[in-house]
Amino acid sequence: MSNDFTVAGFDAAGVTAGIKKNGNLDLALIASRTPCRAAGVFTQNAFAAAPVYYDKRLIEFNPSGIYGVVVNSGNANACTSVEGDANTKRTAEAVEQLIGASDNSVLVMSTGVIGVQLPMDKLLGGVPKVVDALRPEGWEDAAKAIMTTDTVHKVRTRSVTIGGQTVRMTGIVKGAGMIHPNMATMLSVVATDAHIAQPLLQQALSTAADLSYNRISIDGDTSTNDTVLLLANGMAGHAEIVDAGSAEFGAFQAALNDLCTELAQALVRDGEGATKFIQIQVNGGVSKADAHLAANTLAISPLCKTAFYGSDANWGRFVMALGRSGANVKPDQCSIYITGGIDNSQRLPELQLLAGGMPTGYAEADAAERFAQKEIDVRIELGLGDGSATVWTSDLSHEYVSINADYRT
Amino acid sequence: MSNDFTVAGFDAAGVTAGIKKNGNLDLALIASRTPCRAAGVFTQNAFAAAPVYYDKRLIEFNPSGIYGVVVNSGNANACTSVEGDANTKRTAEAVEQLIGASDNSVLVMSTGVIGVQLPMDKLLGGVPKVVDALRPEGWEDAAKAIMTTDTVHKVRTRSVTIGGQTVRMTGIVKGAGMIHPNMATMLSVVATDAHIAQPLLQQALSTAADLSYNRISIDGDTSTNDTVLLLANGMAGHAEIVDAGSAEFGAFQAALNDLCTELAQALVRDGEGATKFIQIQVNGGVSKADAHLAANTLAISPLCKTAFYGSDANWGRFVMALGRSGANVKPDQCSIYITGGIDNSQRLPELQLLAGGMPTGYAEADAAERFAQKEIDVRIELGLGDGSATVWTSDLSHEYVSINADYRT
Repeated sequence: MSNDFTVAGFDAAGVTAGIKKNGNLDLALIASRTPCRAAGVFTQNAFAAAPVYYDKRLIEFNPSGIYGVVVNSGNANACTSVEGDANTKRTAEAVEQLIGASDNSVLVMSTGVIGVQLPMDKLLGGVPKVVDALRPEGWEDAAKAIMTTDTVHKVRTRSVTIGGQTVRMTGIVKGAGMIHPNMATMLSVVATDAHIAQPLLQQALSTAADLSYNRISIDGDTSTNDTVLLLANGMAGHAEIVDAGSAEFGAFQAALNDLCTELAQALVRDGEGATKFIQIQVNGGVSKADAHLAANTLAISPLCKTAFYGSDANWGRFVMALGRSGANVKPDQCSIYITGGIDNSQRLPELQLLAGGMPTGYAEADAAERFAQKEIDVRIELGLGDGSATVWTSDLSHEYVSINADYRT
Repeated sequence: MSNDFTVAGFDAAGVTAGIKKNGNLDLALIASRTPCRAAGVFTQNAFAAAPVYYDKRLIEFNPSGIYGVVVNSGNANACTSVEGDANTKRTAEAVEQLIGASDNSVLVMSTGVIGVQLPMDKLLGGVPKVVDALRPEGWEDAAKAIMTTDTVHKVRTRSVTIGGQTVRMTGIVKGAGMIHPNMATMLSVVATDAHIAQPLLQQALSTAADLSYNRISIDGDTSTNDTVLLLANGMAGHAEIVDAGSAEFGAFQAALNDLCTELAQALVRDGEGATKFIQIQVNGGVSKADAHLAANTLAISPLCKTAFYGSDANWGRFVMALGRSGANVKPDQCSIYITGGIDNSQRLPELQLLAGGMPTGYAEADAAERFAQKEIDVRIELGLGDGSATVWTSDLSHEYVSINADYRT
């Protein structure tokens, strides 16, 4: 993993504003020295938080003149009504003034406890500090400042050559609970110096999110605040990407997909209480949506997740989940395979557990060895069509319960 | 709670056949001395187990000539293909011969591990024992013999006067994981001496199941084996109930609803790792189905369930769950109330937490006191229509994880 996260024209910072009681970093800022095209993907939760509404409207209003995004952790600014809306606006204005940006040019994200008004004295007191701390190398601090129950900060970067120029893109993400497909997943900001038309930027982000953030699940719960933002300031120097069919757009999309997938997987690996990383691939569904439904039902099943945690080769729970998923399933067409390893590069040979709806004659020790690995791949063949989907999830551990039984105390 | 579970003409028993490794009771039999009308409600899981298919077909084939039901625990006989089907049939035949019943007159249920063939030597060896043990007072042994991860056996009874005669009905139920609405919940057998036409018996059972077993959730998972059977042998001596509009049918239905609700609630109270009993009532939905969807999303949300476990008055998770449920929700119309007690008879005054999508000015200590109770009632008013639904669930504890991480070992 590269330690150079810089992107031309972008600065980042993370500081302590005092919103979190424990004194950790809790205010982040990503700022561009020139206006950016912006794109966003937002939670579909009916109780979406104030900054979600704000960012949606701001990107519609000013899609190509965004100067940055300010993020607080420790307070979600959700269920806060008109006062919450006003506090989001005041936060954006405070940043706009100090970085010398125009009105209506700074996006806002919040994450933390729901139903408590933002401590605006602390937050506004932190704004000058975070502006002062801005620097090209500030990405790790920014990644730390958006954490809640995350145990590690998550920042990744990619480079891709477009039109003879090196284009950089760097992203940060935070989890670690209320993580579930349906775009509604986490906070993430990706900044790039690519030069790309705003509608294509939105298209690229929607595509990448569908292949990455919408394929992960930690607990099946969907937050009120989840947002992914993509900012592009065009400073890489290549000709503007304006054609969705061009090789340049293809290269940009591929790099963005790759970056977002790595960020999403990093989020699952750091899921609340996660001790294992599970990939569930379903092939042979009557449709892609059906395969996704089947894979997802396994990914959110408490019984499957505790079996992974306990290294219990209890594939009976997989068929239970497939059977209740609502996906088209015919037991006598269904096969299940498993492999695992300590990481992606060291895998045990794949073992078939189920064939035609019945257990194969596998040795229990071979299955147990695979379930005991830290990274487990489940492959399910439904045998009904061409629909495929892959999702990533974590196990359900004692630690998950501890974290969530005591979150506010 | 009455200790007299007898029902005229019925005998029950539970014995050790050796299917469970721990030597506990694992083979139950409920038998009637005269033929019964039978009704059933079955899992909708696509991987439904062999006895589920068998019972469905048998009730269609012989709806008014059933002599009993034999139940094994320790092995689900699911994912066992044609051999599983044959083993179910052999089990039924063995019982039919020993109790002197006609062919195709005994129902079968199985619960336990999936994907392992039944140990037929042990099971068939146990059949003479369980037939020998049959007696009118055998209900508690039968209830014990169907347990898997249950910690207490669950048997309840009701009496109702119909046509001047006392009608009795006694039911047993087992959980305690893979418990979730959509009839797919558990094993339960209810026996009654009522005299009632078979179509009305099925109608009464479907109605009662919808109000009881389909309103509970422990982990959102739905088993391959879940079955509720209702047997009526007519020995109470009243005139046959043949009219769904009659007072007699109404009295029977009311008593059955009441019995099944108590059995279902007992199952939640004994849910895997449960430390609390939670009632979630949603009113004001645009439809009953919508209210049920909203209530159910809270009931299966890991974040809501861990908040109950941790006695954390974190209603932000309730609005998160409402918002992602798919039910029609308007935050500014939404109110949330809570109360709790050590049991149903001792409740703290109801406390309003949310009004119009915003927290009320409640005292944190008052909320904490209610969340700390063993029985908690959540009432949500959506303010959009007349749809109401009530569901019951348990909390998500460390013990749930322990039970399910180590189930087979």
